[in-house]
Amino acid sequence: MKLIHDSVHGTIRLKDWMVEIIDTPEFQRLRRIKQLGFANLVYPGANHTRFEHSIGTAFVAERIAGDEEIIASALIHDLGHTPFSHSGEAVLRRYVGIRHEDLKEIVRESEVRDVLERNGFSWKKVVEKANKPPVSSVIDADRIDYLLRDAHYTGVAYGIVDFDRLVEKISYDGDEVYVDISGVRAVESFLISRYLMYSAVYHHHVCRIARRMFEKALEWMIERDLLNARDLVKMDDHDVFSIMRNSEGFPREIGERLSMRRLYKRALYAGIEEVGVNLSRINQRKAEIEIAEMAGVDDGKVIVDILPPESEEYSIPVKHGNDVFPIEKISPLVKSLKEAQALNWRLGVYCPPELVEKVRKGAIDFFNIRVSEQKRLSDLFEF
Amino acid sequence: MKLIHDSVHGTIRLKDWMVEIIDTPEFQRLRRIKQLGFANLVYPGANHTRFEHSIGTAFVAERIAGDEEIIASALIHDLGHTPFSHSGEAVLRRYVGIRHEDLKEIVRESEVRDVLERNGFSWKKVVEKANKPPVSSVIDADRIDYLLRDAHYTGVAYGIVDFDRLVEKISYDGDEVYVDISGVRAVESFLISRYLMYSAVYHHHVCRIARRMFEKALEWMIERDLLNARDLVKMDDHDVFSIMRNSEGFPREIGERLSMRRLYKRALYAGIEEVGVNLSRINQRKAEIEIAEMAGVDDGKVIVDILPPESEEYSIPVKHGNDVFPIEKISPLVKSLKEAQALNWRLGVYCPPELVEKVRKGAIDFFNIRVSEQKRLSDLFEF
Amino acid sequence: MKLIHDSVHGTIRLKDWMVEIIDTPEFQRLRRIKQLGFANLVYPGANHTRFEHSIGTAFVAERIAGDEEIIASALIHDLGHTPFSHSGEAVLRRYVGIRHEDLKEIVRESEVRDVLERNGFSWKKVVEKANKPPVSSVIDADRIDYLLRDAHYTGVAYGIVDFDRLVEKISYDGDEVYVDISGVRAVESFLISRYLMYSAVYHHHVCRIARRMFEKALEWMIERDLLNARDLVKMDDHDVFSIMRNSEGFPREIGERLSMRRLYKRALYAGIEEVGVNLSRINQRKAEIEIAEMAGVDDGKVIVDILPPESEEYSIPVKHGNDVFPIEKISPLVKSLKEAQALNWRLGVYCPPELVEKVRKGAIDFFNIRVSEQKRLSDLFEF
Amino acid sequence: MKLIHDSVHGTIRLKDWMVEIIDTPEFQRLRRIKQLGFANLVYPGANHTRFEHSIGTAFVAERIAGDEEIIASALIHDLGHTPFSHSGEAVLRRYVGIRHEDLKEIVRESEVRDVLERNGFSWKKVVEKANKPPVSSVIDADRIDYLLRDAHYTGVAYGIVDFDRLVEKISYDGDEVYVDISGVRAVESFLISRYLMYSAVYHHHVCRIARRMFEKALEWMIERDLLNARDLVKMDDHDVFSIMRNSEGFPREIGERLSMRRLYKRALYAGIEEVGVNLSRINQRKAEIEIAEMAGVDDGKVIVDILPPESEEYSIPVKHGNDVFPIEKISPLVKSLKEAQALNWRLGVYCPPELVEKVRKGAIDFFNIRVSEQKRLSDLFEF
Repeated sequence: MKLIHDSVHGTIRLKDWMVEIIDTPEFQRLRRIKQLGFANLVYPGANHTRFEHSIGTAFVAERIAGDEEIIASALIHDLGHTPFSHSGEAVLRRYVGIRHEDLKEIVRESEVRDVLERNGFSWKKVVEKANKPPVSSVIDADRIDYLLRDAHYTGVAYGIVDFDRLVEKISYDGDEVYVDISGVRAVESFLISRYLMYSAVYHHHVCRIARRMFEKALEWMIERDLLNARDLVKMDDHDVFSIMRNSEGFPREIGERLSMRRLYKRALYAGIEEVGVNLSRINQRKAEIEIAEMAGVDDGKVIVDILPPESEEYSIPVKHGNDVFPIEKISPLVKSLKEAQALNWRLGVYCPPELVEKVRKGAIDFFNIRVSEQKRLSDLFEF
Repeated sequence: MKLIHDSVHGTIRLKDWMVEIIDTPEFQRLRRIKQLGFANLVYPGANHTRFEHSIGTAFVAERIAGDEEIIASALIHDLGHTPFSHSGEAVLRRYVGIRHEDLKEIVRESEVRDVLERNGFSWKKVVEKANKPPVSSVIDADRIDYLLRDAHYTGVAYGIVDFDRLVEKISYDGDEVYVDISGVRAVESFLISRYLMYSAVYHHHVCRIARRMFEKALEWMIERDLLNARDLVKMDDHDVFSIMRNSEGFPREIGERLSMRRLYKRALYAGIEEVGVNLSRINQRKAEIEIAEMAGVDDGKVIVDILPPESEEYSIPVKHGNDVFPIEKISPLVKSLKEAQALNWRLGVYCPPELVEKVRKGAIDFFNIRVSEQKRLSDLFEF
Repeated sequence: MKLIHDSVHGTIRLKDWMVEIIDTPEFQRLRRIKQLGFANLVYPGANHTRFEHSIGTAFVAERIAGDEEIIASALIHDLGHTPFSHSGEAVLRRYVGIRHEDLKEIVRESEVRDVLERNGFSWKKVVEKANKPPVSSVIDADRIDYLLRDAHYTGVAYGIVDFDRLVEKISYDGDEVYVDISGVRAVESFLISRYLMYSAVYHHHVCRIARRMFEKALEWMIERDLLNARDLVKMDDHDVFSIMRNSEGFPREIGERLSMRRLYKRALYAGIEEVGVNLSRINQRKAEIEIAEMAGVDDGKVIVDILPPESEEYSIPVKHGNDVFPIEKISPLVKSLKEAQALNWRLGVYCPPELVEKVRKGAIDFFNIRVSEQKRLSDLFEF
Repeated sequence: MKLIHDSVHGTIRLKDWMVEIIDTPEFQRLRRIKQLGFANLVYPGANHTRFEHSIGTAFVAERIAGDEEIIASALIHDLGHTPFSHSGEAVLRRYVGIRHEDLKEIVRESEVRDVLERNGFSWKKVVEKANKPPVSSVIDADRIDYLLRDAHYTGVAYGIVDFDRLVEKISYDGDEVYVDISGVRAVESFLISRYLMYSAVYHHHVCRIARRMFEKALEWMIERDLLNARDLVKMDDHDVFSIMRNSEGFPREIGERLSMRRLYKRALYAGIEEVGVNLSRINQRKAEIEIAEMAGVDDGKVIVDILPPESEEYSIPVKHGNDVFPIEKISPLVKSLKEAQALNWRLGVYCPPELVEKVRKGAIDFFNIRVSEQKRLSDLFEF
């Protein structure tokens, strides 16, 4: 038994087998992967890593389920993460076709597998549970930990989630998670916090810009065989950043821009009422190429960012006696948050500051939208 | 200059004239008036007083305006409060026709007036400002302090308000207060906190029940000349509670019930969709008498509680350049909160546990409403 | 199972039998007894009560021992407290010969006894354990809770105690409590916090003055049969304060002084190096009478306050393998704190401001001490 | 004017010229230098950087002095820091003869100089003040910020320092800083926090081991011309770590050990009473070579770590009227802490786990000390 200090949950007790997993090279790599990628360009305190988040997720999973297989699963659920977290993940998915949750091939060849087997676990079962409740779901150990942790380190929306009550009221029946009706207020606190984190952090336009710049540089290197996409899951932030800064041309430029915080700016930033069509079918890459062409600029200078809608996640199942229903049905606040979130959706087109005018025109033409000349008020009140 | 420890704002600096005001008997009385009346029956930590709230309000007013007259005004704004705060205020208004904000006659005869004049203030101007921005308004020093303080001591919604940013972004033009557009997120944090505090504390049915029981006992004593309503503004929680417990009959019974936490229960609890009419014209006192008659019980056993709608308070003015507009116009979240709050409105009829069935029938008849037999789900998830 | 919000420990789960105990009149009385008596005259936030402390102590006891009999014992350990906490306790001990821990006779006749028996407890065993580890000891559930709670509400030394680690490292063998050697730092944090709380709160001269003024008024009333000392354990802060304010002469004057914060001042404040003798044999009451005589003032105007030494409490037993030794042996910091605390000891003689000079001379003569004319520096840096 | 979220101080206002400084490449480099080097190997949350510390120091300096030149000085005081903070600094001093405080040559050629001059500052004066009160002193903006910040991110001793009162009570007379006598308790809180941070973090043996391993690898590379010591002040954590991991032999091994947390262990760990001589004259490098020889192991495998005594820092000047005296004179607690800290001093000799026995013998011979066979108890209670 070992105790560690965690910034979010306080003292955490680690059983011996957990310490063994943590001591593997695969797990130690997570020390060097920032949880929020480039969000520290906006929130200077956001330097926390997948390492502490993974331990925190195991802590939350224990509170919810108490099952050792699930705790192990929570602990290793992020072993497949690429450097700078989600920034690399989209690229990995595009070029290799795996998601960070596809842990199987990572664990199969790892010391983690040895540790799991030595401690009586079936490593395959542990891996399988990483994608299932209560580790991963609409309300789960992963989400609860990262929401609390990201709030703590950014200073945004900190202290909103009523953690003790929330985990107390979540029950796991071996298959799904439910929240008891007496925990509705705690779920509301969770969803308010998430709403605020999305608008102020996860979807903050500067965080999005830095992330997409990084992704674009990764793609550039992968397409020119300077980087093997499959290696990303073994690399850390140091590695990728070094490669970028030591290369030539585009990746080097992006590396320096990210280092010096000389970021692209918004050329177009449009809400759902202006775009007015289903954008999910649009290919971001193609849009970038065409807009660059229309604007007469180099294709690397244009970034298109179409956020996923993510509306389904509000349907957290509430249990009252034998009845189960989605929380929107009984909470006016949750219903309201869901509607408000939809209104926050934005399409972003970004480019270097000196090209904003040109790219803006190209983007407006491409998306065939009518943007009022007056800047939308709601885009002025960023943190 | 004196420093004091404040639980909410940390170290607060008090100028000499502020210490002199605090040392008057009128101000010291506030030490013995609980800020949240009987809310400690639900939240055991809610024992804070008007004394610390008044000092805190002066602190916030200084942050917003820096003007000494306004600071003085904020400091004394609650000198007219009755014991157990708002619990006594409604009674005072009914029988004497003054509100706790009507400070003039209290200050006129007080040591506070001497201190103000000795320190070069016009006591009348100080009193007048207690009802105006930035001490009292849609977003003001009073509201900001009590929201933070009540959250701290109840443990509900604590830490949500981004205080530093909020006061930074509020400007006072000598007449009104405005929030700069870059402070919209901070106002959102303020309104989320307020939404949660209303549903979990201020309008919590147990807090409402205890408050209305106390009011009913006060009315009983005033109508029988056992208590002079005008004296309430000089009394403290100790005084009134002693009188109640040392009297006979109804006030004594209520005093004991409140002491022992043997409270009335909900006989009827109906939302706006069930009541369906404008209730603002209904006289609570008359309703109690008629329902008691219809139920065949003693009139003291029935409490009717019709909450005020309070919907206008969301219209906080936001400034962008020379334009001013209400915050709902640009914040989807605020618009949503306003709608959600309306759905939380409840009509409550309360009585001793053993009379719930009888009184319920009487109340349903009186209000002529159709209440579904099945208990509403949204009334099950109280804290 | 019921959940409540606690300001210190967050969400606390109460089993049904605990709720039943809390709902008794004896336990509800604790809602109206301030945990720190008159400390709110110095720290405006210190309005917390024995009610929440008792629930908190049960929570800590559960963390240390998990035994239901011990939890019950922790929950009821303060049922015998007098109004304004320790302020009344010394008086009770002098006139009745019982301490607040003598619970037996209080519980014997109470509803609490019925609840305990109905739930399968032996009420006598529960009562007996209230004076024993881990409820009461050198490091115990009672001390841990009140230290955290008093720090939270005064704002002094808040956040110092590493609570999770501390309770994790305390073990209870059915007889005594020990701290594992890996918990020494956590005990250090506990003792630092206690050191600071003693110097800034518990022994703050204003807190001592108010407490001793109150005690003196109580004694006056008891000696004149205006108050039966035995009734104190059934009364609350409201009751005693009302009696004082509604009486004549001395108690009324003290009641008003405490209400208006017109307190006695320091006439003599001397450290151990000046007093230089064993004061434990001196009778405070006799000293007051003689000093008053020597000063030519009324005996009610002089208060002598001799603090207990309390040095033994640093000997917290640390366990390493099979060895047990007091913590001072291995912690330089604890050894240092113990020495520093001894130097903070003060003899205080207090009186109304206008009599300070007279009483000071009488006190110096009585104690036969040489006080340097220059005020000691260490008495200048009060909070 | 720009507002940023700071984890420690909350919302911080940045004037335009501060934003310009922050936007220079020299300042942005600080984003990639961890404030506590390798302490995150012990405290997973300790990933904060010199970037946020520098902004925080400027914030504290403003609170103490309000002078723009001093604020600028505080903002840039760490521009000369080497990667992994203090870990690189000792190496730099040895090989180049400069300290991180020697800012002049760094600023002279930088964009920071341009920004300063453009905004009307004398860049030389700004640089000069970085080494003087109130930026750097026995109690200063730098120390106050890093103590609070390190406590926040490690979770050790967090919340102990009474920040508001401390900065309120520090005065700066244009030359030196003093603390008013009414701030002695706040200084005590500062020194308690520092005491705990030294024993639990700064001098934690694992933090020391990792730091010394890193330094040894740096030295190795510098001596073999693989790294130019003068370049260190332009590099960041990514750069140095990449060089180490991409090199051959010793630095690569150390890089991997640090990446995988496969650290050296304690071969000898001795207190002042065992060592008994003045060690300050001993050359660490020579000692390592000789011990390695005596133990028959490779010289890279032995690390000697002799901590500086650092006892003078307790002499914080306290002002009372016109008198100034060191705080130990009036605070028993500070005197005690100073004595306790001396007892915490340790000599450490570290090596790979498999060589502990051999190296231990060599080290005991070299230092000619008598180490009791029984492990000291005080070395068992690490966090």
